[in-house]
Amino acid sequence: MKSCGDRQPRAEILSIGTELLLGQILDTNSQYLTRALAGIGVDCLWHTTVGDNKSRIEDCLRIALERADVILTTGGLGPTADDLTRECLAEFFSVPLLFDQSVATAIAERFAQRQIAMPESNRKQALCPHGACLIPNSCGTAPGIIWKVETELLEQASISQAQGPRYLITFPGVPTEMIAMWQESAKEFLVDTFGRAAIWSCDLKHYGISESALAEMYAQLLGLSNPTVAPLAGGGECRLRVTAKAESIDEAKTIASPVIDQIRKKSGYLCYGCDDDTLEAVVGALLTNKSLTLAVAESCTGGLVSKRLTDIPGSSLYIKLNVVTYADLAKEKILGVSPDILVNCGTVSSDCAQAMAYGIAKLAGSDIGLSITGIAGPGGGSASKPVGLVYVALFAEHFQRVQELCLPPDLPRCEIRQRTANAALNMVRLCLLDDSGVATNG
Amino acid sequence: MKSCGDRQPRAEILSIGTELLLGQILDTNSQYLTRALAGIGVDCLWHTTVGDNKSRIEDCLRIALERADVILTTGGLGPTADDLTRECLAEFFSVPLLFDQSVATAIAERFAQRQIAMPESNRKQALCPHGACLIPNSCGTAPGIIWKVETELLEQASISQAQGPRYLITFPGVPTEMIAMWQESAKEFLVDTFGRAAIWSCDLKHYGISESALAEMYAQLLGLSNPTVAPLAGGGECRLRVTAKAESIDEAKTIASPVIDQIRKKSGYLCYGCDDDTLEAVVGALLTNKSLTLAVAESCTGGLVSKRLTDIPGSSLYIKLNVVTYADLAKEKILGVSPDILVNCGTVSSDCAQAMAYGIAKLAGSDIGLSITGIAGPGGGSASKPVGLVYVALFAEHFQRVQELCLPPDLPRCEIRQRTANAALNMVRLCLLDDSGVATNG
Repeated sequence: MKSCGDRQPRAEILSIGTELLLGQILDTNSQYLTRALAGIGVDCLWHTTVGDNKSRIEDCLRIALERADVILTTGGLGPTADDLTRECLAEFFSVPLLFDQSVATAIAERFAQRQIAMPESNRKQALCPHGACLIPNSCGTAPGIIWKVETELLEQASISQAQGPRYLITFPGVPTEMIAMWQESAKEFLVDTFGRAAIWSCDLKHYGISESALAEMYAQLLGLSNPTVAPLAGGGECRLRVTAKAESIDEAKTIASPVIDQIRKKSGYLCYGCDDDTLEAVVGALLTNKSLTLAVAESCTGGLVSKRLTDIPGSSLYIKLNVVTYADLAKEKILGVSPDILVNCGTVSSDCAQAMAYGIAKLAGSDIGLSITGIAGPGGGSASKPVGLVYVALFAEHFQRVQELCLPPDLPRCEIRQRTANAALNMVRLCLLDDSGVATNG
Repeated sequence: MKSCGDRQPRAEILSIGTELLLGQILDTNSQYLTRALAGIGVDCLWHTTVGDNKSRIEDCLRIALERADVILTTGGLGPTADDLTRECLAEFFSVPLLFDQSVATAIAERFAQRQIAMPESNRKQALCPHGACLIPNSCGTAPGIIWKVETELLEQASISQAQGPRYLITFPGVPTEMIAMWQESAKEFLVDTFGRAAIWSCDLKHYGISESALAEMYAQLLGLSNPTVAPLAGGGECRLRVTAKAESIDEAKTIASPVIDQIRKKSGYLCYGCDDDTLEAVVGALLTNKSLTLAVAESCTGGLVSKRLTDIPGSSLYIKLNVVTYADLAKEKILGVSPDILVNCGTVSSDCAQAMAYGIAKLAGSDIGLSITGIAGPGGGSASKPVGLVYVALFAEHFQRVQELCLPPDLPRCEIRQRTANAALNMVRLCLLDDSGVATNG
């Protein structure tokens, strides 16, 4: 990869649009472009969002030009008065906006195809700052701009020239138009300018260990420079991200791969998958591979585990029947939990959970029965059985387990339910990974 | 609203985290916070994203402090070495980080509740820059920081003091933790500092009408200037947002109120609630008020309706039993659907849905039985029964209904399931609103 002065090129994404600052639109463009830049080895170090205000746009442009080599803007290319990107660029570098007749004709044709007369305001979209190039928009009327800004213009605008020319690319704010323009013009331009390189990363998803414990376990790896290794947490789960840089994606994967193997080996059952893997998908794949079936009896999770298991296409192959038994009578009548247990131990108890797991497996005729009973709150807790107390149990012919969870009682109900579901799905996973466990059918 | 110097307070959101710059995480926090700021009348004029790099974080902090009065940061409060927010703030203003024993104790207790020893690295989360305050995190270990930075500190850091003190608030990057912290501490602090919000809005949530039909129905109101009325759509539902501006929230409500009343009256049953109301919460409130119980038998939604109904605290009062019967045998054995129906009409049929609704009501002994059977895809469709074909049925003593849904087969599985669940919950709502319908118990 070619360098910029004495270092790798640095990019900034500048999103322009008051609607973003009002929160009316979620900015997905920055995520797309930042990933796309990583894919060709350009480090994106900043995202900035600014509204449709000329002086603030120009201030942000100055900051971006001072610190970045490549600036990608999105938004502000439309035909209306609050679309200011073109004007701001021309004003900033004190160059005229030139009218491009061939682009105007192309825009008019697009309207003609839809049998609509082109509004006069759209002519503005054929304007281009002197020295820049318009790039086509295959999905809309607004062309983009690619501009290699040479050092003379930078000097004139009082921008430091030490790092060499800057590369400005403007995209429309509509995601489909932006994506098409990246794929059809901008990507190639940047690859031609800087050469190809690649950043590749992989998230190793862990369950059953805290972020800080994971960081301690892998303290030595956290100091690596290529690949880098970083812990991330959220929702009672945590991940180790391994990121490698190289001339190509394949080479980056090769650099990352020994570290990934090392982590997978050391983490063992703590690591359940990578990237978009979910506990329910991993459980589903294991059930499918082993030709086993699962049935679930839930109380406090109220159908969440069932919902997550059946989020996976094809789950009807291994899920035949799940039940949500809130009421004691339902636990007794449907699952056959003995009244003794309900009276003496209570519904939120290890005994009740085990009886539910056994009961659902028998009722459904499934290889594995999973059960959950607990108090998701905010009401229903007591001193001896507080909110957050949950029992998860699993019954299979050769594998039985029960686990008590004491989740923080001040967690929101949804979080208690989600974490409980994670623990339950993980219990099924561990059961399926246990070689001494359930026999494989078929 | 109090002003900042000679104008309204201006805010900037600074998102900190390399994962955002790699595009591995979509930044939804900025949208939440920018909306939340608008809700209390603070203009957010910039969003900036920067990675876990000390010098770049401090550079961004300087830019933000120069142009904004209020700076909200997200991310970088975790226990690991790449969590730099606290250190950067302290370094930037050259103040020491002080250890807060009571906060450390609270963090340790959170670990103790989960029966895990607190890793040493989490002690770092009890550090607070001298002069700032820690604010509690009800959903996680990382406390936030609220800091009124007085002009002496600004001077020392060579930041312009003309606009008066700055207000720095740090949030964790995990969305649930950030949202809880905003609602429990930060919002009140900003309202106390700058006075009450002057923008108030209310979303009137509709079901059973398209966005364009709603826009036509209320064409006259869409031209209003205060309050404004705007239609919004998403996920098969749509909303009318009524937004009023005034000197105070109460005044804004007074301005909006006649228009809201007018819409509610004209929309009738089409409008099921406002703002955070959900179909499941509305159904829950109606069931509670009428002392009625509900039981659900799901097939293609796989527990989603049950999960949504039991998201509502206190739902165990009206939900006793739900079942997910994927397999034919489960439909027959548990719900008593006759083999005739399964063979002659198929499981995805009006007859089967009705038999399931009747069966679950009888099995659970509930006042209302609700059932869903259909094809969520992506597999399982045929020419006569394509993906997206769903039947929803309801059985109550004096009210029976069945509805065929033909959802677009190219919708993702999750979307087909979500829309089906909406239709099913709405059917229960209409049943409960029907005066000729189910008798009120108790």
